[in-house]
Order: sequence, then structure tokens, then C-alpha cells
Amino acid sequence: MSDINIKKLAEQLQLSISTVSRAFQDSHDISPKTKERVLEFAKKVNYQPNHYASSLREQKSKTIAVVIPEVANNFFSLVIDGIETIAQENGFHVLICITRDDDDMESSFVRHLQSGRVDGILISVSSKINDFKKLLDVDSKKLPIIYFDRVFENFDGPKVITDDYESGFKATEHLIASGCKRIAYLLIAKHLYIGQKRMLGYLDALKKHRIKTEQNLILNCSNDKEENRLLIKRLLEEEKPDGIFASVERLAFACYFACNDLNLSIPGDVKIISFSNLEIASLLNPSLTTITQPAFEMGRQAAILLFKALDKRNKNMPDEAITFSSVLVKRASTGY
Amino acid sequence: MSDINIKKLAEQLQLSISTVSRAFQDSHDISPKTKERVLEFAKKVNYQPNHYASSLREQKSKTIAVVIPEVANNFFSLVIDGIETIAQENGFHVLICITRDDDDMESSFVRHLQSGRVDGILISVSSKINDFKKLLDVDSKKLPIIYFDRVFENFDGPKVITDDYESGFKATEHLIASGCKRIAYLLIAKHLYIGQKRMLGYLDALKKHRIKTEQNLILNCSNDKEENRLLIKRLLEEEKPDGIFASVERLAFACYFACNDLNLSIPGDVKIISFSNLEIASLLNPSLTTITQPAFEMGRQAAILLFKALDKRNKNMPDEAITFSSVLVKRASTGY
Repeated sequence: MSDINIKKLAEQLQLSISTVSRAFQDSHDISPKTKERVLEFAKKVNYQPNHYASSLREQKSKTIAVVIPEVANNFFSLVIDGIETIAQENGFHVLICITRDDDDMESSFVRHLQSGRVDGILISVSSKINDFKKLLDVDSKKLPIIYFDRVFENFDGPKVITDDYESGFKATEHLIASGCKRIAYLLIAKHLYIGQKRMLGYLDALKKHRIKTEQNLILNCSNDKEENRLLIKRLLEEEKPDGIFASVERLAFACYFACNDLNLSIPGDVKIISFSNLEIASLLNPSLTTITQPAFEMGRQAAILLFKALDKRNKNMPDEAITFSSVLVKRASTGY
Repeated sequence: MSDINIKKLAEQLQLSISTVSRAFQDSHDISPKTKERVLEFAKKVNYQPNHYASSLREQKSKTIAVVIPEVANNFFSLVIDGIETIAQENGFHVLICITRDDDDMESSFVRHLQSGRVDGILISVSSKINDFKKLLDVDSKKLPIIYFDRVFENFDGPKVITDDYESGFKATEHLIASGCKRIAYLLIAKHLYIGQKRMLGYLDALKKHRIKTEQNLILNCSNDKEENRLLIKRLLEEEKPDGIFASVERLAFACYFACNDLNLSIPGDVKIISFSNLEIASLLNPSLTTITQPAFEMGRQAAILLFKALDKRNKNMPDEAITFSSVLVKRASTGY
């Protein structure tokens, strides 16, 4: 049996991953009989549990935290799935903290988690953060922090991101190739590196194709659904864009609702593309063209970085920056 | 200013709810100037912070946990929103724990949280739970637990649920009124009270309308997307139902994908109704008829029950069972 991992092992044994993991942790949560069954089978198929496990046994809380701006978002759901795969392999619990894009809440959470509650943190920063030091002041020797997706500009520490500039460029070029001449950009988190990168891609794509940038076509949206719907309706009425690039999933939904309100046809009157990990993008009316991030894998890699940092044998934080590519999936909302 | 609450107060002050809450908690997280501004304004509009706050000050962790089966689910996202509103008013942090419908993981989480990590737990139990005692053994004096939505049968403690039997009945009658004669029921969590209640409503509605119950039309689904899609495709091919009642949201998505695979028209060939809190149900192709639970309010009420239990002045756990009604929203997937 080649390439065996804990998931396959669990499938073969018809047990859950967490049960198998507990067998390796020598946990008293499972019966001795089950433990024996797991260890025997692992030996038979020559499976070695993750090599961090032994040195991780020193960690006190056996818990890591994931600090994210929102939970009703398919990108973050998938990231959490990826993180949990690795946490389970290491016998760790995962706690989710939701900041609601509130920087006060975010720094309060991180401080709160410091006092032995968790051994490490994975964080996607809030869009409103204006005092980077609040977070960066945390002693990374005591509490390693790995950043993913939404990171600070010029932050050189360990992080897992996607090619936001290239994706912004690609999405905009796709709208241009679909015949759009007045392309609006829906922005959120304007202080945030990720938002700036995506927008820079948009601006450079316009420049390359000699389309004039118009400030009126760049809409700074909020965290409030109804407010966004109204803002987008006004944009559609006053500026009459023929293409919209939504930088996050829920802004695409707001566009659909706004177009319905105004009886505008997608893609006839306006074409729409969005960053999104929506599982049912193809079931929308019309199906939504997306720029999709490899969210699950991003979560896995961020967690692997964190467990490297938690491994006492590593004296320093892993100084890795991992950049993934996003994928353009063409669907009916841009005429495909 | 009548009926002032912390949310309105925050809006008026143009501050976040958590900042306002911290002012009342006398937290050092915010500036003295902001604190003064909040307290002065609160006095002016005659706002009294939640009356639990003072007695809650004794709690050690100022943290509550929400233990749920999954996070990529609009019902749970909204419940969390509701819980956080109340937690913020009381100056508490909320930690989310995801059990992935795994009863080992669930009981491990609850044990893990007991040791002073949190002051109380809100839980929607995993569908696989087969040993109720695992959870009920926790000393509710030390760690109050409030159950919501997915609860144990015959559990008499504090809980917040919806009228699952009536909703199951109503959904089935709606399909019958739409002309369906062969109605399939997609079941998940068959050991769980909530699933049984919904199915009982389905069975009784068939009986009332003298439609024979067929075991082949009751499909026990899994937690795996692809497996469900295949199971539903086989059901559609072999049993040719003209109506499907999905007991949870993601099974409705699996139905849409299966119908697309088989080139079946919704609602022409098969009508679909589902329990769902999907914000974009009206944007699907076709728009999805839903039974929608008041998720946000359920979260709020469950949290209020928990803070009652945490109030040291209350000697006993609140023994309340709150039942909410769900709402049927007719859309194109059942021909409306």
C-alpha cells in the first residue's frame, strides 16, 4: 500500500480520522481494543504517524486557533477544512475565532489566546486593521502566528497567499476579452494588501488595453449586505458599467440582487466576475464566472507551517512565504 | 430614544459593538477618551448595559464555546451571528468548535473545554452520537450546556429548537399540493431526534393524503458530497420520484447537481423543497423553495439562556425549552 496517510488508514479501518489519531496519541478517549487494532494495522501497512507528533507532545494546550474575519464565506470554510486535516493528524484541537472585520476584536482575541489557551495561531487579518503593531507585537517565540490570505503589506514572516495581482489582472482581461469597455471594480478592505494587489491587477489590465481608469467605477463597499445592494444599484444606474469585477464573493451576490432589482440582464447588460469558492457557483442564475483560490490546500499548508514552528526542534520560526495560483473558471455571467 | 440597545448605541457613536461593550467592561483595550465618550452618551440616552454583566464579572475565562457539526452551512453561520450579539453585550469571547459530525471529536471537545477554558457551551449535537451519556455526564453546575437545533430525544434540559415535525408536514403537503405523487425524503442524521421529527412530519402528511409510503423513496445520505450526488442520481433513475424533500441544505445542492447530470428539469420533472437558510436561494436556477428556520434569533435566545445559567444569582440551570416556527418560502423549484 503506497502513499498511505491517516485519512486512507481511517477509511481502511472504517474509523474516523480523529479516532485513528487518538490511537497514535495514546489517548484514553478510545478503547484499548480499538487502539491495538489501529496500531497493528498501521504497522502492517508501514504507516508512520506525522513526525512532529512526538516533539509536539510537550505542547500544553494541544490546541491551535484560527482567527478569521467571517465564517459565512466558502473560502474560509474550505481553509478550515484544510487546517483541520493537519491538526487531526497531530492530535490537536482547532478553535475558530471570528473577528467580524473588527480590529479591536481581533487584537483582543489574540491577546486572549496568548495565556496558554492555544499553542499557535493561524490568522487572516481584519480589513479594518490600522495598527499592525497590535498583532505583530505578540511574542512569536511564545505563540507562533502564521498569516494566510489576508496579510499585511511588507510582512516578511511565514505566510500562505495567492497571486492576487495576477488574478486581478486575469479577471479584468477576461472581462475585456468578453467585450466590456466600462468595467467597475468592487473593493472591500481598501487598507488591506490583498485588496490593493487585486485592484492593482485591475488597473494594470485596463492600462495595457488602453482603457481609461475612472474613479467613479471603483466602488468601496461595506460589510453591510443591504448597504452594498444600494451602493451597487446606484453605480449601475449612474455609471452604467458593462462589466463588474467583485473582489469578494458576497459582493457578487449583492450584484445579482441589484441587477434583479433593476431588471438588468446578466450577462446581456452587465457581465460579472468574482473571487469566489462558492460550491454552487454553477447553479446560480446565471452561473457565476469565478476566480477560485485553492482554499483547502492553503489551509493545509498554513497548518503545516504552524506545526513546523511548534516543533521544538526548530529553533526559529519557519520563514516561508508560499504563493498559490488562483484559477479562472468561465461561466454564463461573463457570456460563456 | 426608546428601545435603545447596544447595537443602536454603537451605530449612533459610529463605533463597533465590541468597542462599546469594552467601555462598559472598563477594559483597557480602548482609550480612556473613547470610554468616556461611550459612557457619557449611554447616560444621555439612558442606556443600561445588560444586567448580567456585573455578576458575570466573576467568571474566569469570559469565553463561551459553540460546538457545531459543520461550518459551511448558512443555518449555523446565522446562529453564530445571533450568539455573538449577546456575547458581545456581555463582553465575552466566542470560540467555535467544529465536530464534523464525529461523536468522538465532539465529546473530546467538550472534555477539553471543561478545564477552565470556557465558562459555558452552546451545542448542536453531532448526528453520529450514539452514547448520549458522553455529553450529559458533564457537570452542568461547573459548565452549563445549552442545546440548540440538533438535540437529544427526551432531553428535558434547556434547549432552543424549531417545530421540526410541523415543518416536515408542511413541506410535504406543499409538494402534494404542487401535484407530486411520488415524494422522496432525503435523510441525514437518522439517529437524531431532529431528523426523526422531520421525517415523521413527512410520513404523516403522506398518510393524511392517502399516499402509500415506500421505503425505496427514503434515502439515507452521507456526509460526502460526491457520494450523495451518486445516491440521488440512482434514486432519480430507479425510483423516478416527482418530488424531493431534502432535510438539509447541502442535500438540495446535491439534487440540483444530480438533476443537471441526468438532464432532468426542476420543477418540470421533479420538484424540490429543502430546509435551508441559504441567503441566495432566490438566485439559484431555478430558485429554491425552502423551509427556513429563524437561525439568528435561535442563536440569540440560546445565548440568553446560557448567560442566565452563568448568572451566579441563579442557583439552578434555566429549565426552558424554546420552540420557534420555521417559515415556508415558495419559489420556482416547486413551480411557484
